[in-house]
Formats: sequence, structure tokens, C-alpha cells
Amino acid sequence: MRVRKAVITAAAPNQNTLPLQRLVDGSGEEKTALQLIVEETLSAGVEEICVVIQPGDEENYRRAAGGSLGNLHFVHQDRPLGYADAILKAETFCGDDAFLHLVGDHLYLSSMAKSCAAQLVEMAEQHACPVSAVQSTREHRLPYFGIVGGASVPRFDGLYDVRTVVEKPTPTLAEQSLITPGLRSGHYLGYFGMHVLTPAVLESLHEVVEDESLERPTLSDAAAKLPHRGKYLAYQLRGRRYNIGEQYGVLIAQLAIGLAGRDRDMLLTELVELLATREEPSASASALANEASAGEAQ
Amino acid sequence: MRVRKAVITAAAPNQNTLPLQRLVDGSGEEKTALQLIVEETLSAGVEEICVVIQPGDEENYRRAAGGSLGNLHFVHQDRPLGYADAILKAETFCGDDAFLHLVGDHLYLSSMAKSCAAQLVEMAEQHACPVSAVQSTREHRLPYFGIVGGASVPRFDGLYDVRTVVEKPTPTLAEQSLITPGLRSGHYLGYFGMHVLTPAVLESLHEVVEDESLERPTLSDAAAKLPHRGKYLAYQLRGRRYNIGEQYGVLIAQLAIGLAGRDRDMLLTELVELLATREEPSASASALANEASAGEAQ
Repeated sequence: MRVRKAVITAAAPNQNTLPLQRLVDGSGEEKTALQLIVEETLSAGVEEICVVIQPGDEENYRRAAGGSLGNLHFVHQDRPLGYADAILKAETFCGDDAFLHLVGDHLYLSSMAKSCAAQLVEMAEQHACPVSAVQSTREHRLPYFGIVGGASVPRFDGLYDVRTVVEKPTPTLAEQSLITPGLRSGHYLGYFGMHVLTPAVLESLHEVVEDESLERPTLSDAAAKLPHRGKYLAYQLRGRRYNIGEQYGVLIAQLAIGLAGRDRDMLLTELVELLATREEPSASASALANEASAGEAQ
Repeated sequence: MRVRKAVITAAAPNQNTLPLQRLVDGSGEEKTALQLIVEETLSAGVEEICVVIQPGDEENYRRAAGGSLGNLHFVHQDRPLGYADAILKAETFCGDDAFLHLVGDHLYLSSMAKSCAAQLVEMAEQHACPVSAVQSTREHRLPYFGIVGGASVPRFDGLYDVRTVVEKPTPTLAEQSLITPGLRSGHYLGYFGMHVLTPAVLESLHEVVEDESLERPTLSDAAAKLPHRGKYLAYQLRGRRYNIGEQYGVLIAQLAIGLAGRDRDMLLTELVELLATREEPSASASALANEASAGEAQ
């Protein structure tokens, strides 16, 4: 199995401007979030990328793609029918191939030289099956994630054979069916926002989309069917993900990227200055003069 | 003189997406930079706002304006002929009225309860003449600003009677003609990116735009004519400005706004965590496990 295609979903209502936000990457270059996400896929050997967007967003996305545009295809999700439906909009693009799937509102920062996407794709190609990236997730964060339960795969650090998938489980349900040996107490394996999926997953996605008992079905609903049909793995890769759709999400992602990059020292200096020059509204004029001159030191 | 109109220039090439960037304001609410700039003008009593944009940007700006849209008019600068030309595109909108002028790539953070724009407009209404906001600027930053020289106005703290204006002066020229008594040695009064302008300024803008010896004339070129024709003041108001067009500009602005606002303690906690969890690419798997669990603490 080779992974040469990627699907980025970016059609969720109110989230569609996130990939257009501008950040500075680890080498000091200004890029849109879309460019950073595209680069993440390219770093894993991907050659063609399909971005699922809302109708009307294509021109903004083309502009935001910058030099990566050559690899990009756009498809529309006409109605906001949820995450499972969004991935299926890329079905024709995917054909019979396995593909990397990323969400348009997450940025990834690897803790090693190899990117997060490259770590995941390597594992999927080696095992020739769908693999979801996961991270250790505390119990109080269960309401925000798809959670998987399973057993460690011997000889592969951080790799799990998935038995159960539940979207946003309650703590009780998690304790009953999602405990994964080897994690710290009260921790579960939560989706990281990055998967390698296969045509078998697209089949499951069709089933959940056609299931009228499910309202706006998610990828978790489809992934829950996979363990009964074949191998489905979860991989705790070495890196962090940043949800730029959360409050202060862009700020935290930018800080993390900047502090891990070339401009770390400069950013630390800026931080110290910002913290040192804070004033109360009652500040005196002389304190202001000091502040203004400190600000100039940048 | 009453100031009830504002002009925001946002048509500069490569700067036109800056007002569309999303930030979190001091009360924790997500807004575009355009909304923050519009709110700055409204806080000073402005009722109607004209935004000078590139052709083709109007739909994005309308979306980015959110609830402030009712006060907004858009005019186009068809060709990138510079700053002076951009302001003149709003001439019909301004008519015979004084107006507040802000640039679309700056955010302002007051050091007192009254906003930066409100401080400036109050001073302009009191003196019934054009007033430019300025800040103390170190010599090595001269290449980035319009610089004014003048004399303190007695009994008004931080107010100067402008005698000379030079765009991006050399240190030698600054030392010869722009020294302002009362500032620290090696400091000059640099434009803050916020002005109250009058029909007389529009006249000067016409002159510099029609002057074929000037290439892409700036507001400074027009302002340089003002001291010979009537009163023109500069006001060192109490606050800071953040140029979001600079590298890391959005990050620094967001940090300054956040650290001065409601969420200061939460942001400090995030900062400490980010600094504590940094890893080298050679990090061991166990260090990663600690990092992942620390990250969950947010």
C-alpha cells in the first residue's frame, strides 16, 4: 500500500476561514494555515490533494494555497451534512487508493525530524491498513474527541490494534469499553485529527451516511465498523496538534511553532517585553514614556 | 469641529488580507482585525466609515465586518498609486468634514480607559485642526516611519505644534531638523498610524499626487505642507500600536491584547506550559508522554 493522495476537509460552517489565517512557519516564512497543512501532506510523500470546501470559498482558497496550488483539487460540500459526508465528497478523487486525511482546522508540530504525517503514513504503508493518529487524552477532555480503545501491538511502540471507537463518549462509557492498557490512569486514546483511510473506510462512511438513525454522522461512526471487518490501527505518533478553531487557537499554534523554530530567542525576548511593559489603566504618563521606549527596543 | 467620519485605508498590495485576520479581543470575543479597527473608530464617536480597498476585496471585507457593516462604505483604489492617492479615494465620502484616518494594518491598545482614537479625536475637536498621533521612536527605527519635529504646546501634556514632517528620514536629516525638545536623546516623534485630517489636508494630498517629481507620494509629503498654512498638531497619546503587517505582527498584537484583557491569567498559564514542554527532536518517548499529558491540562 502506498499513500500518494490526501483529503483535507474544510467545509464546516464557521470554520471555513481558518485555513486562510496567516502564520509564520518554523523557518520564519509567512504562510497561510492551508499552506502549512498542504506542506504537512507533501512531507509524507503525498502528490495530489483534494480540499473539501463550502461553495463560494474556492477563490479564497486558491489564493491562500500560494505555490502549492499545482497539487490541489477542490470539491464542494453543498450542504453542511457533517464530517462523514464531507469526506465522501472526495470519493471520486480517491478512487481505489488509500489516502491521508487531515482536517482543515488543525496544525501539527512533530517532536522529531520526521513530520507527523510522515510518521503516520510510514506506519500505514508498513501495515497496509487504515491507521488513525491518536494522542493520550485526559478523561475531562473526552467530550471533544473521537476515542478509540484497543490493545498494544507487540514490538511497535505507540501502536494499537483498535477494537472500539466512540465519538465523544461519557466517562462511564469510556471506563467500560475504551480503557487501553499501558496508558496512565484516567487517560484514553483520542483522535489527533489525522488518519490514513482506505476504500473500505469509504464503504463504512456510505453506510453511516445512509443510516437514518444517525444525525450528521462522523468519521468515528464509520471507523467503529472497521475492527469487525479487518485490521484497523491507532498510532500515538510523536508530536502535538493544535486546533486553530478554538479560542486563542491560532495564537497558541503560532507560539508553539515559533518557539520550536528559528526565531525562538527573538520571540522569548518579545514575550518578556510584553510581560514587563504591561500597564494598568491608571498608569502615570512617566510610566508610559518608559513603556514606549521599551517597545522601541524590538 | 466634530469628527463623525472615519477613513480606513486597506488597499496596499500584499496587505489586503490583514484586516481579515481573526483575533480574540480583550473581552474574549473573536473578531476580525477589521472589526477591531472599526470598533476603535466607533469608540471615538465616529458614525460613518469609508474603507479604501482593492477592487475584488469587497465581499471578503463585507463578511469580515460582521455586525459593524451598517456603518461601512467601500471605495476602490484601482491602481496601487500609494498612500496619498488611497486617502483621496475617500474624498467624496469626506466632503467638507474633518475625519479620523486609520490604516488597515495596525491595531491599537490604549493604556487608559479611553481608547486611542477617542484620545486623539478629543484633542482634535478641542483644537479644531488636523492632529496626528505620534509615539516616541528610537533613531534606528526612523526608516519605518513618518517623523515630525516641533515644539511642545504649553499646558497640554504630549501635544506638539508641528513644524516639519519627513517620511523615513536619515539619522543626519533627523538630527538637523526633527529634534523635538522634551524627548529622550536619540528619540523622535514617529507617526502612530492614526490621524484626524481636514479638507485642508485633502487639498495638500491633491498637490502631492499631482506633483510629478514625487513617486507614490505619502501622507507625510502632504502633511509637510500643513505647518506653513495653519495649525497642525501631533499628539503623543497614551497607548501602543501594533503593526500586524510585520513578521509575527498578529502574534505580538494578539498577545498584547490578550495579556491586557480578561484572559490574562489563562494565557500566562498557556505560555508557561508551552515553554515547559518544548522538546528537542532527539526527545525520548517517555518525555513525549509527559508532554502529551501536560498538553491536556489546558
